[in-house]
Amino acid sequence: MTDISRVAVIGAGVIGAGWVARFMENGIDVALFDPAPDAATKVKAVLDNADRAYQKLTMAPRAKRGNLEFSPSLAEAVQGKQLVMEAVPESLALKQSVYKDIESHVDAGVIIASSTSGILPTQLQEKMANPQRLLVAHPFNPVYLLPLVEIVAGEQTSPKVTVAAGEFFNQLGMYSLPIRKEIDAFVADRLLEAVWREALWLVKDGIATTAEIDDAIRFGFGLRWAQMGLFESYRLAGGEAGMRHFIAQFGPCLQWPWTKLTDVPELTDELIDTIARQSDEQSGQYSFRELERIRDDNLIAILQALKINQWGAGETLGRYEQALFDAGAREETATDEDPGQPLLTLERTVPPDWTDYNNHMNESRYLQCFADASDALLRRVGVDADYVADSGSYFTVETHIRHLDEVAALQPIKVTTQVLNGVGKKLHVFHRLFHGDGRLLATAEQLLIHVDLESRKASEPTPEVSKWLTEISAAHAALDMPEGCGRAIGDPH
Amino acid sequence: MTDISRVAVIGAGVIGAGWVARFMENGIDVALFDPAPDAATKVKAVLDNADRAYQKLTMAPRAKRGNLEFSPSLAEAVQGKQLVMEAVPESLALKQSVYKDIESHVDAGVIIASSTSGILPTQLQEKMANPQRLLVAHPFNPVYLLPLVEIVAGEQTSPKVTVAAGEFFNQLGMYSLPIRKEIDAFVADRLLEAVWREALWLVKDGIATTAEIDDAIRFGFGLRWAQMGLFESYRLAGGEAGMRHFIAQFGPCLQWPWTKLTDVPELTDELIDTIARQSDEQSGQYSFRELERIRDDNLIAILQALKINQWGAGETLGRYEQALFDAGAREETATDEDPGQPLLTLERTVPPDWTDYNNHMNESRYLQCFADASDALLRRVGVDADYVADSGSYFTVETHIRHLDEVAALQPIKVTTQVLNGVGKKLHVFHRLFHGDGRLLATAEQLLIHVDLESRKASEPTPEVSKWLTEISAAHAALDMPEGCGRAIGDPH
Repeated sequence: MTDISRVAVIGAGVIGAGWVARFMENGIDVALFDPAPDAATKVKAVLDNADRAYQKLTMAPRAKRGNLEFSPSLAEAVQGKQLVMEAVPESLALKQSVYKDIESHVDAGVIIASSTSGILPTQLQEKMANPQRLLVAHPFNPVYLLPLVEIVAGEQTSPKVTVAAGEFFNQLGMYSLPIRKEIDAFVADRLLEAVWREALWLVKDGIATTAEIDDAIRFGFGLRWAQMGLFESYRLAGGEAGMRHFIAQFGPCLQWPWTKLTDVPELTDELIDTIARQSDEQSGQYSFRELERIRDDNLIAILQALKINQWGAGETLGRYEQALFDAGAREETATDEDPGQPLLTLERTVPPDWTDYNNHMNESRYLQCFADASDALLRRVGVDADYVADSGSYFTVETHIRHLDEVAALQPIKVTTQVLNGVGKKLHVFHRLFHGDGRLLATAEQLLIHVDLESRKASEPTPEVSKWLTEISAAHAALDMPEGCGRAIGDPH
Repeated sequence: MTDISRVAVIGAGVIGAGWVARFMENGIDVALFDPAPDAATKVKAVLDNADRAYQKLTMAPRAKRGNLEFSPSLAEAVQGKQLVMEAVPESLALKQSVYKDIESHVDAGVIIASSTSGILPTQLQEKMANPQRLLVAHPFNPVYLLPLVEIVAGEQTSPKVTVAAGEFFNQLGMYSLPIRKEIDAFVADRLLEAVWREALWLVKDGIATTAEIDDAIRFGFGLRWAQMGLFESYRLAGGEAGMRHFIAQFGPCLQWPWTKLTDVPELTDELIDTIARQSDEQSGQYSFRELERIRDDNLIAILQALKINQWGAGETLGRYEQALFDAGAREETATDEDPGQPLLTLERTVPPDWTDYNNHMNESRYLQCFADASDALLRRVGVDADYVADSGSYFTVETHIRHLDEVAALQPIKVTTQVLNGVGKKLHVFHRLFHGDGRLLATAEQLLIHVDLESRKASEPTPEVSKWLTEISAAHAALDMPEGCGRAIGDPH
């Protein structure tokens, strides 16, 4: 764990604001400086998007959001910080002057990270008093959701600085990729530039419109690249003979006529007009914010999908989620809930993709809420991943759900859990699902049995788990038997 | 609807075999010709992968798989077919000779589609007797999962042919993208070639390894490109000022030094060795088949995720799924089930991403099976999307699940549904979830109420729906009351 917790961001464009959101969503207080008069408005829009995205990104308890302070000057923003993220426009002279300014207000140990998408760190650090503190940390839009951050050191950068910064970004749910040698545009943007050049030719020559080029990407290799990259995909494209065969087979194509178009097309007014017009035709039916939210929803859905497969960016999300769960469990233990009342076992908003064609939360998601609530109760009494690996698990044997009211996407919901009986192998609970406004949406009575995962037979939990459950059920014994409990389907209620 | 149902494939490489799988999975019989002695073995491996993938791709009833015939000669393969898919190696002379051969055995109206990834259709059709029948249909690996197919016409291609072929591929769950002008490598491969050139330089110059380049893609812009392409993503990267601002801001970068590297790097033995070695280090811990299956699982998860958001390739999958549901409903109506027995309302395999950390089907997915079974029953009695739009819907008010046994990923499952009461506003059903081997896994008793979607109040179903449900419940009246029905949690069973 690095202990970076005091951060300043200089520049409130799309990237700067994205950094602010990423930091705040991870509980870090941020001081932001940007002289533009509309900076606050723009940042608020990005923070709103990030807030919306993080409500859906994971089912783990969300970190307490950090605070944002708009600093009236760069000096006040960087004062007392441990890391300063520079996200000003792509001008070497401007960036060098910003570093000079920052350095005059901070200690020598403070890390300065540049978000540049292409300028060499060795150039950036040329005029610095303490050049060893500067590195490039190049993120990708939307910064609060995409994990990649390219870490590039200049000739004078201290290896300690790159390591500390890389670890810090990883803790924010990002994926730090150290680049071996500095090179203009680093790695990802070099690939993007190549595609961009080629795409400009295709539009200019009337081969395809912007929408058609996008379709050629997102219905084909874009789907591959969300999970494997170029080389791993081609390893499979070559058939079982593998990579060497692939290169041997397709290498000659590199010399074919289509490699002629490697020049940069001239960005004439006409070409710019064509692109802007085609882009409007393609995406103009959505407002900028709508399109951003569509993108975010898709990214979240893809990240969650890959998380289930424990692959690539999904694996990164899984690790991040685990850290949030762990932090949440520590916090739960620390709160002073009334032990005589049902426990708060779930608190979240309804993800939009949980709704059915009737436009309310899908039937099976009610059971997911209750199952997640049972899991939260179990984690709380010590049945975590380690316990499951060593000592068994609880299996649900019966559930009786009563659906009492509807709930729509993005509405806040919570579950409380009353332990009716927690002694021995059986665990009998009663969950209540509430809307944030207090309406009771559904109840579920569940019977769980502790199972030995080797024999798949009922078994006693460990004494420690038993002790916790016995304590909770004793504390809940004074509560009334819940309405709707112990009844069969169709009994009046 | 096109009526293409008799298809031949010439060439059984990765692409040819992928086409065979795509056709068969859509109920089309395929004749395949490939003179290679190991063709059958290689095709079987691809078909096994496709079979595995289609078990998970959608919850809709799967089409009855088409048959595959290995033809001993090209002549026998193409005999009597309506469309011949050519997927032989990328040699103009070879392809031209194959077309000559095909044409000598088929009628003038038969469509010939080439899978070439870059040769101009005008060149391909140069020596043909009926050049109007040839088009390029360029798919992407894995052909059975990725939707994109570039449709490219040559100078002599009949527009009728491109339209018919495009419609045909769309019916197979693909996304036909007509390319406006023919150009070497068309659109997608031109972009891919640009990235490939750039990536070769990065490896050659030691900037990044193959694994690092792949990470730069799949943790960053690859995630964007699975759902939006280049232009729509950049529209957002420019901030609210939009596309014109983006180009104005980043256009100058095109003239920066990093655009120098547009030449083609020489594919020396050393470079090939480096790539093959790095690729082994990156992916060598997986067998070729394992890696293919990881890729397929990821693609399915991404497609399903995008389907929920009704976006891009997910929208394509959604339409395809709807067509399968419709076909399944037609088939259900046509079968001669015993009306006095519980109805078969669900039949599928357990998707791997439905399993929990205990490695069996996740608790909430049991309710999804039962909810889907109720939906299937409702579709059968006329409660489809049109009905919901006009006349209301059934809401579940109570569910009592008993979990009796576990089931693992990819196991076959089915649900039968007994209608206990289907008269009036109430629908009382009893579902049984079975393993394919006959084991009872769970039961669910459900009470549903017909609801007017305007008032959100209980209402009578239409007379037609009522008539169907009354008929089914009358036919089921003679069945025994199911074991476990009408009981409360914890009652002995």
